Amino acid sequence: MSENDLTVQGFLASAVKARIRGKDRLDLGMIYSETPANAAGVFTTNTVKAAPVLLDIEHLKAGKAQAILVNSGIANACTGENGMKMAQATASLAAKYLGIPDELVQVCSTGVIGEPLDVSCFEKNMDSLVAGLSSSGIMDVAEAIMTTDTVPKTAARKISLGENPVTILGLAKGAGMIMPNMATMLSFIMTDADVPVPILQPMLKKSVDRSFNAITVDGDTSTNDTVLILANGKAGNSPLNEDNPQDMAVFQDALDDLCKDLALQIVRDGEGATKLVTIRIEGAVNDQEAQSAARTVANSNLVKTAFFGEDANWGRIIGALGRSGATFDPDMVDIAFNDAFMVRDGLGQGADVEARATEVLKQKEFVVTVNLKAGNGKCEYYTCDFSIDYVKINADYRT
Amino acid sequence: MSENDLTVQGFLASAVKARIRGKDRLDLGMIYSETPANAAGVFTTNTVKAAPVLLDIEHLKAGKAQAILVNSGIANACTGENGMKMAQATASLAAKYLGIPDELVQVCSTGVIGEPLDVSCFEKNMDSLVAGLSSSGIMDVAEAIMTTDTVPKTAARKISLGENPVTILGLAKGAGMIMPNMATMLSFIMTDADVPVPILQPMLKKSVDRSFNAITVDGDTSTNDTVLILANGKAGNSPLNEDNPQDMAVFQDALDDLCKDLALQIVRDGEGATKLVTIRIEGAVNDQEAQSAARTVANSNLVKTAFFGEDANWGRIIGALGRSGATFDPDMVDIAFNDAFMVRDGLGQGADVEARATEVLKQKEFVVTVNLKAGNGKCEYYTCDFSIDYVKINADYRT
Repeated sequence: MSENDLTVQGFLASAVKARIRGKDRLDLGMIYSETPANAAGVFTTNTVKAAPVLLDIEHLKAGKAQAILVNSGIANACTGENGMKMAQATASLAAKYLGIPDELVQVCSTGVIGEPLDVSCFEKNMDSLVAGLSSSGIMDVAEAIMTTDTVPKTAARKISLGENPVTILGLAKGAGMIMPNMATMLSFIMTDADVPVPILQPMLKKSVDRSFNAITVDGDTSTNDTVLILANGKAGNSPLNEDNPQDMAVFQDALDDLCKDLALQIVRDGEGATKLVTIRIEGAVNDQEAQSAARTVANSNLVKTAFFGEDANWGRIIGALGRSGATFDPDMVDIAFNDAFMVRDGLGQGADVEARATEVLKQKEFVVTVNLKAGNGKCEYYTCDFSIDYVKINADYRT
Repeated sequence: MSENDLTVQGFLASAVKARIRGKDRLDLGMIYSETPANAAGVFTTNTVKAAPVLLDIEHLKAGKAQAILVNSGIANACTGENGMKMAQATASLAAKYLGIPDELVQVCSTGVIGEPLDVSCFEKNMDSLVAGLSSSGIMDVAEAIMTTDTVPKTAARKISLGENPVTILGLAKGAGMIMPNMATMLSFIMTDADVPVPILQPMLKKSVDRSFNAITVDGDTSTNDTVLILANGKAGNSPLNEDNPQDMAVFQDALDDLCKDLALQIVRDGEGATKLVTIRIEGAVNDQEAQSAARTVANSNLVKTAFFGEDANWGRIIGALGRSGATFDPDMVDIAFNDAFMVRDGLGQGADVEARATEVLKQKEFVVTVNLKAGNGKCEYYTCDFSIDYVKINADYRT
């Protein structure tokens, strides 16, 4: 079974064209576990949470889920009481067709904010959606959740827990409105591992902080962001537990790796993006200040347009560092583009190095390393350049 | 004397083409007061402060200035010890030609960060710069300080303090890299009023907070931002003092008005900007939360690209409010574009209102009013839309 084989024991999936915004495209998907799975979720930190997010948090309280129903087109956010009724109605509809309790259904929506969800699109298509469930349907769901995404995003990892082979499979969407703390970003992760909920939830949180929460496309965050993991235990491994730190580490590493893979796919597909840039901060007073510095540089429009222009304009990076709140002495900073050290001790290193840095910037992917020389704090953020197409896409999105 | 008459008693100005970055344009300017003036300044809060900013802060300690020497092309920022020597050398050069102490010269630079200032450009041109000083030279200085600005920015106000007519005259530059807390923004204000320094400094700070610190073009801030005011007392009014609150108020109001005028000229000329948008937050828990909310909305790329697209996409405004840290109940928020109330109590008000809102967005200038209904805090920010030209300008700036 290759990493491109998008199946996991006991999971089925399906997607249909429900014409939720009138378009002839896959826009309604379902993931189904043959048995109730242990489940955990990480949701948007935005004060404004869409109805489906509020419902999912409620449904997840028992730590179990068996189905995910997801639509694109309409976000069902800022839709008031009626929005919550619609979210509940679609969850109940799926539960009825699947013959499971409402509480085992997670619902997710992505798309335009403030418009009502048309439940009739769900009613007309639930029969064929459920009938279509198959072990090979994951790619269809990955397509159904795309909005401004240009490619579906999936990843798989194979590991062994004890003697038992285990699969972790994930899909994701998200292009614009991406910033740490979950932003118009959906990701669903399925595994046949047996992982008790008290272990699953913190493991997911840890992986998300190192991946989806360390990427940025435009600094905006959304009302609907959701990462869900369902673990159905079909692999037959002994349930993960603190007494087996090795298996715990194997699973955490694989989950980290999978989430980072999906997160980087999102940045590469950032609206209008032409480059994937890692911002690595070293030598901050502590990790928290490193994070502020990385986030400020990664979100600076001036830095990101310079990346687009393939201009090694380190002045803009210094400018962003200076307003990040991180403590440092400007006369000590080093800045490198891959191995081209443009700045040492706060001073530019001349035309030869700049020529090498300019070559680095022509690449599709590169690393900007900043050493603040103020301590041992460090952090990595992943960002993209900021192109003319970003503006075109976002000026026209609703029309 | 009309408001377009750019003269103030006792002030002379001049600009020359010094080819600081090799271009055939006015790039070196001087403002000179015939007598030493009371002086105050507000400078960038960026941790990374350019050499001229550090020197000006030092020179201003005695509260006096007689000349401002300003160049565009090179920012003299991130230039280490050598940068400070260059700043001092240019101040000394001007002082020598003018026959005044070095400490009475303020120096300002704007342009590319990290490149050395070529003092020979100053040496070759100081003679003609000083020889050219005249009462009608202010517009030349306004042109000499432009970088990506497309128009020079000046404003004047005439008031009376007691029986004495008084003029306040200002010029400014700044297009991109503008955000609260002073960003690649220079403004020089001259007045013939007699204002003691202990009164002048807090008055300037108050005006700046309500104007230059309440505008944003791209959320970036700079290493060189400076607002200076010189008051030479030639008007002969009795010096402003706390015992004459009426004159104090007249001067503060005029200074506020002048600074807001210049600040809005900067936003209108924001890189690639086609619209000037006022973001008015009402009903926040307090003024501080109102400011966070206003700043977050005013800086959101998604909100600003929607303005460019003339799309009344209030979902993006709600999304930005939700990540601003301001306390509010999403189900109570009102949002209006001028008088078109798109959202009441968190709900969209339908196609008719949207059609009216869309008409509002087609205008060059409009107001977005958000009522959070959580308290009495309020704040206004001034921003522009985010266009394709912004990216073009900033991808190409150095080349």
